[in-house]
Amino acid sequence: MDEKNMRMVLLYDFYQGLLTEKQRYMMDLYYQQDFSLAEIAEILLVSRQAVYDHLKRTENILEKHEKNMKLIEKYFQQQKIIKNIEEKIGSCELESVGTELSDFLDELKELLKQL
Amino acid sequence: MDEKNMRMVLLYDFYQGLLTEKQRYMMDLYYQQDFSLAEIAEILLVSRQAVYDHLKRTENILEKHEKNMKLIEKYFQQQKIIKNIEEKIGSCELESVGTELSDFLDELKELLKQL
Repeated sequence: MDEKNMRMVLLYDFYQGLLTEKQRYMMDLYYQQDFSLAEIAEILLVSRQAVYDHLKRTENILEKHEKNMKLIEKYFQQQKIIKNIEEKIGSCELESVGTELSDFLDELKELLKQL
Repeated sequence: MDEKNMRMVLLYDFYQGLLTEKQRYMMDLYYQQDFSLAEIAEILLVSRQAVYDHLKRTENILEKHEKNMKLIEKYFQQQKIIKNIEEKIGSCELESVGTELSDFLDELKELLKQL
């Protein structure tokens, strides 16, 4: 998957709740189920161009939502912090630690995974 | 602040990026700056009822966004996990720990605060 597609999958993941059912359906066929424009056109009995235009419009809507809400930006910031914490815990393990502390660190790691 | 207002402030905080400038302006006056309906009506040269209707509509929009996106629900789930981690770290401190481990735990707490 190229970088542009990856971004669109991410945008769809975060903002699909703000799309109409029709917009979600097309995005799902194209980005999740990997149908081609021609195949979607055949399914929906419309032209390939109509599918393209519809997807383009939906993509613009998703980009606008990210511009206004920055959920993806915040998500990556948070992932960076979580990675920092994980690395800190990892570096502590490298030293010789007792079983009790080792269990404690494992539990912290488990909790972090849930974030 | 009563419970309903608290929820609306929270909804506004999460979804204001999806509102129009006018919607944000009214919500800000009413919920953040604590103006009354009558005061807002005077500022905007409209009836008190018009202000009330506008706010009601905006509140419904915000509730609909939460229903579709569940950002607040996810936020509280995450806060619960962070609290769990903090408690775990706190309980570890209760035992007598060396300076090195104590510093380590302080650093973890600092990182968690950034989440």
